Amino acid sequence: MIPNIEILGLVAATLTTASFIPQVLKAWKTKSVENISLTMYLILLLGIILWFIYGIYVNSISVALANLVTAILVTLVIYFKLKYTNKQ
Amino acid sequence: MIPNIEILGLVAATLTTASFIPQVLKAWKTKSVENISLTMYLILLLGIILWFIYGIYVNSISVALANLVTAILVTLVIYFKLKYTNKQ
Repeated sequence: MIPNIEILGLVAATLTTASFIPQVLKAWKTKSVENISLTMYLILLLGIILWFIYGIYVNSISVALANLVTAILVTLVIYFKLKYTNKQ
Repeated sequence: MIPNIEILGLVAATLTTASFIPQVLKAWKTKSVENISLTMYLILLLGIILWFIYGIYVNSISVALANLVTAILVTLVIYFKLKYTNKQ
């Protein structure tokens, strides 16, 4: 049985990971990315990669998996930011 | 002595927390927030609050503190998003 507190951790991880989906969709649909801070997403990506390595080291699948998915979503935001910024 | 892996965790936490500062400054300076997804920041805030509670429960000061600071920064982005969206 997963202890309640770990369920809380899994819910928190799911929310913080899934939260980037609306921003990815908004950037993709509107192709308007000027107000999004590239600096934020680059620093965030670096931090998330470190969290992923941390998750591997401490054998925490949820930390590693959540941060792997978040890294993919954050990379998408960076891709759209770079792609659509030059277009304007 | 703090084990290396915990130092990695602290660096990751610092990066993922500090990463929101450039977005807060950009929103504050430009007062242009249209491309920022409010849905993302609301879901993110909920997840971060759960991570904060998780940190308290597992007696992890770094998890609790990092998520407290991130919650403040994310709340600022939400505040600017609401404040400046109506202005345009």
